[in-house]
Amino acid sequence: MFEARYQSFDDPRERAAAPARIAALRVELKRRGLDGFMVPRADRQQNEYLPASEERLAWLTGFTGSAGAAIVLAERAALFVDGRYTVQAAAQIDAKLFATEHLVDSPPEQWLEQNLKSGAKLGYDPWLHTSESADRLRKACATAGAELVAVEGNPIDALWRDRPAPPAGPLSLRDIKLAGESAADKLKRIQAELKKLRADVLVVSDPQNVTWAFNIRGSDVAHTPLALAFAVIPREGKPALYVAAAKLDNKTRPALEEIAALRAPDDLVRDLAQLKDKTVWLDQASAADALTRLLAGSGGKPVRGADPIGLMKAVKNHAEIEGSRAAHTRDGVAMARFLAWLAREAPAGKLTEIDAVEALESFRRDSGLLKDISFSTIAGSGPNGAIVHYRVTRVSNRTLGKNELFLVDSGAQYEDGTTDITRTVAVGTPTDEIRDRFTRVLKGHIAIATAVFPENTTGAQLDPLARTALWQAGLDFDHGTGHGVGSYLSVHEGPARISKLGTVALRRGMILSNEPGYYKTAAYGIRIENLVLVIAGPAPAGAEKPLNAFETLTLAPIDRRLIDSRLLTAKERNWIDGYHARVQEVLSPLLDAATRAWLDAATRPLGNT
Amino acid sequence: MFEARYQSFDDPRERAAAPARIAALRVELKRRGLDGFMVPRADRQQNEYLPASEERLAWLTGFTGSAGAAIVLAERAALFVDGRYTVQAAAQIDAKLFATEHLVDSPPEQWLEQNLKSGAKLGYDPWLHTSESADRLRKACATAGAELVAVEGNPIDALWRDRPAPPAGPLSLRDIKLAGESAADKLKRIQAELKKLRADVLVVSDPQNVTWAFNIRGSDVAHTPLALAFAVIPREGKPALYVAAAKLDNKTRPALEEIAALRAPDDLVRDLAQLKDKTVWLDQASAADALTRLLAGSGGKPVRGADPIGLMKAVKNHAEIEGSRAAHTRDGVAMARFLAWLAREAPAGKLTEIDAVEALESFRRDSGLLKDISFSTIAGSGPNGAIVHYRVTRVSNRTLGKNELFLVDSGAQYEDGTTDITRTVAVGTPTDEIRDRFTRVLKGHIAIATAVFPENTTGAQLDPLARTALWQAGLDFDHGTGHGVGSYLSVHEGPARISKLGTVALRRGMILSNEPGYYKTAAYGIRIENLVLVIAGPAPAGAEKPLNAFETLTLAPIDRRLIDSRLLTAKERNWIDGYHARVQEVLSPLLDAATRAWLDAATRPLGNT
Repeated sequence: MFEARYQSFDDPRERAAAPARIAALRVELKRRGLDGFMVPRADRQQNEYLPASEERLAWLTGFTGSAGAAIVLAERAALFVDGRYTVQAAAQIDAKLFATEHLVDSPPEQWLEQNLKSGAKLGYDPWLHTSESADRLRKACATAGAELVAVEGNPIDALWRDRPAPPAGPLSLRDIKLAGESAADKLKRIQAELKKLRADVLVVSDPQNVTWAFNIRGSDVAHTPLALAFAVIPREGKPALYVAAAKLDNKTRPALEEIAALRAPDDLVRDLAQLKDKTVWLDQASAADALTRLLAGSGGKPVRGADPIGLMKAVKNHAEIEGSRAAHTRDGVAMARFLAWLAREAPAGKLTEIDAVEALESFRRDSGLLKDISFSTIAGSGPNGAIVHYRVTRVSNRTLGKNELFLVDSGAQYEDGTTDITRTVAVGTPTDEIRDRFTRVLKGHIAIATAVFPENTTGAQLDPLARTALWQAGLDFDHGTGHGVGSYLSVHEGPARISKLGTVALRRGMILSNEPGYYKTAAYGIRIENLVLVIAGPAPAGAEKPLNAFETLTLAPIDRRLIDSRLLTAKERNWIDGYHARVQEVLSPLLDAATRAWLDAATRPLGNT
Repeated sequence: MFEARYQSFDDPRERAAAPARIAALRVELKRRGLDGFMVPRADRQQNEYLPASEERLAWLTGFTGSAGAAIVLAERAALFVDGRYTVQAAAQIDAKLFATEHLVDSPPEQWLEQNLKSGAKLGYDPWLHTSESADRLRKACATAGAELVAVEGNPIDALWRDRPAPPAGPLSLRDIKLAGESAADKLKRIQAELKKLRADVLVVSDPQNVTWAFNIRGSDVAHTPLALAFAVIPREGKPALYVAAAKLDNKTRPALEEIAALRAPDDLVRDLAQLKDKTVWLDQASAADALTRLLAGSGGKPVRGADPIGLMKAVKNHAEIEGSRAAHTRDGVAMARFLAWLAREAPAGKLTEIDAVEALESFRRDSGLLKDISFSTIAGSGPNGAIVHYRVTRVSNRTLGKNELFLVDSGAQYEDGTTDITRTVAVGTPTDEIRDRFTRVLKGHIAIATAVFPENTTGAQLDPLARTALWQAGLDFDHGTGHGVGSYLSVHEGPARISKLGTVALRRGMILSNEPGYYKTAAYGIRIENLVLVIAGPAPAGAEKPLNAFETLTLAPIDRRLIDSRLLTAKERNWIDGYHARVQEVLSPLLDAATRAWLDAATRPLGNT
């Protein structure tokens, strides 16, 4: 009945190939006079969403997580993964080939200091590292008395038979009604920023920024309509967009030619080499070290800093905000149908995580407007819910047990907006402990949803508000409270976030997630996630600073059976009741009778529990 | 009747001398082939508390604030001060000689980029800048096409007639009963840290760390018993302490010789030049760039990082904590007498800010144990209370007006502990607005005082809790919520603090201030400050993380007349009542009858207001 078209449930284990590949790499390194090589999970644009052709780390090691790196020396090798992926790495890699190290607690630099021999030469591909990353590696090599050497041509590419071709899917133009601002106007604003930065040229290396600035969308990677392309924007005059001709057609080509010189991807290096004596702004987070080296070598003046487009893109305009509201209403209908279906079917004890993923995608597809899901749905029942980045496979798939929690984190790509929502629901009767934990997570969620804060407040300043109710019980959650979300673009979008690391001030028009959680290892996971929009806050008499606040965009009931309302303040109960009343009011007219009946019950005030 | 021995009320304005001094400096720079020179407010140890011999910035410009810098070029000069000091700078300096710039918003580097001519040579004294600061200057010079040049011998010293001699006050040994740990044991722990850092040698450049590690106290600067000295601690073997022979006597010399080689201050340069091939740890926050240059030049391997002593010193041991408790009880007696006296005398409308400063110091001196005040008392009535770093002079002195607020921020140095307390009291009847603001500040204070947080929580994470009640009203305060406090040492002690910049995790045993405020420019200031100790928090059933909490050390009533208890939650009212009951219980037996009667009234429960 239901079907998932945008998500596979394969369990990728390429471990069998690893020994031969490592051995071949070692031969290749020796041939090049290298004693080791670093293999990050990265492409030339430091893009989170890699096309298959860039999955060198997975090809070499078998590890398919979304972050990691390997170092291969002649006698030993290590895979570095963060806390989210230690279990997955253990299942996917061969411990005889790789030691597994913690990416943060014992980072590659430390491992190099301890394992590189004096006089050794460590190779790195300067296209796959930022200059900051290369600087750190160089320092570690120096400490060990070794040398960091930039390779010409990645040695893995020389070994990788049947490496997939780079993606060549067509580009499309973004409708101005949805974008809210023409590419020409965006480019003018970017050029004004360049003046402020006193830079002659901006190299746009983050593909999200290219995609946004030129009002294009691509089909290069799964789940995110990124156009994988570079751009070079001079302070005055026509920008250059580096895009394969095969991605363009008779509609997109002339439209783009009006605002940019269209250049082949390979022209980038040639063009940058012409920028003698020019101050060239490179995005420190995404520009490859190869670009710094190229510019320095050809007489340009590379300056590293934050790409100003990042902040411009994060602040959504009126059309993008209206688009997001429409997307969230549409997504709320799918979520209501899904949650009602779950409430009806789960108690029989036969549903699996995969069934749920397939149903949810089908309900979204029924809108007729789903372009893709915004990431592989996380659907974790019982103990699987405690794995923060869980992705169900046919091997891990689990039946939704009675009296268990079920956590579903999912999102959609509609042309008018990207969504991201997590709901945790009870199957059967939750324990007192679970209701206590759920209610504490909810208190944190409400603290963010109702926060009022002066302009220039950062996400780092708000993050603790999501935690104090958990802290009181000696609990916490080991991830940030929220990330930025794009407008029919990346579901993880910088530069603002609500986390310890959120140093960027929140501005009106930014869309972020509000997703505190609690995870009891091997038992259950709780997360409550809505997207929120930064809006003007109240203006009380005597206020000295303009205030901001959040408007919650996501529309779906929060499981009332999991709320212990005795733990809530009157203000918190009012928030829940008000939110549920709004969900009911907006969605109810759009639902079939059965779902509407379910929603009416699911959104009634807490007082009547 | 009352007298201040540790604080002067002079209004220092040396402006008259500035034109001749600037002119002489320009001649001297020209003679040396320099086009400009940077004059930071700093000594060789980046010490907050400067002896008179190091006040080069004040000598040159007339500006006497605690932070700032000047740059003198041939044709123009600028003084850089932060927001606390713009008013003071305007009063103290000659605008014809110096442009005043904002230290943070338009920092020296930016000014240099805009004002240095291509080919110019900017001098700096590498003893008065950290390497980070020098790196920033060098980068700014490079951007302007200019060159940064390290001077040999500070040109100001060559011009400064009757420059005071460096301080030569005697050193004393800290009683082991108060220190709680012998210097020998501290040095062993420091050497163990050096092993972890894989450093051969630690240069201790922060005089607070030298003073703490060797269990000595000095008399080199006002208000803080710092011993201005360097030390060099090898990973194994005897440390060297660089101290002028004149500061030692027949008791201190042999005691120190047991744990250290005693060397003359001038030996430091010679000794460091011997550290060939050694990895030498330099404190990035206090080590002079001259030390990096010296080591690099003589074949040592300078490594910059945080001096591990900073964290060790911040975590107080049992003896230091007991000492602090005793100091706070003693200080509470003085504060109670002061506040009772103020309540009695202020309504007559004749008291001045200076009267209050003198009375408070006298009450503290009556303990017989006051060694010094811990900083110049801030006593601001009415609008003066809104100047965060106000220091009363005979010129600024103001009568405590009727129906005004009076803010008093003060502290004491007792041998067993350093105190720092702010109370804001009503003279006459406060307005509703003032009571609203005071109560919001109090809510922030209580939020910190009652916070419960997992181990590894940083001060940055707690800081927002002190602000949300103000944010609700569109208000905030423009300083951190708290700083570390030493044990009979600096009243501002790193590395932990409760502020946006507080990246260090709070550990049990740390003592910090809890001092939210609110300032209405030209009207009034509010601040409520207690010192708090980080202690073990509760251990609720099911807790997964060890919790920490704060114990409030400071004992003095908070003005009940300023509290609008309708704005407080039941929990907040309980905190105030419980705090006042403890203040009454501890102090009451130690007070004269009149003060006791006042205290009884001042500490009665809010319910009976």
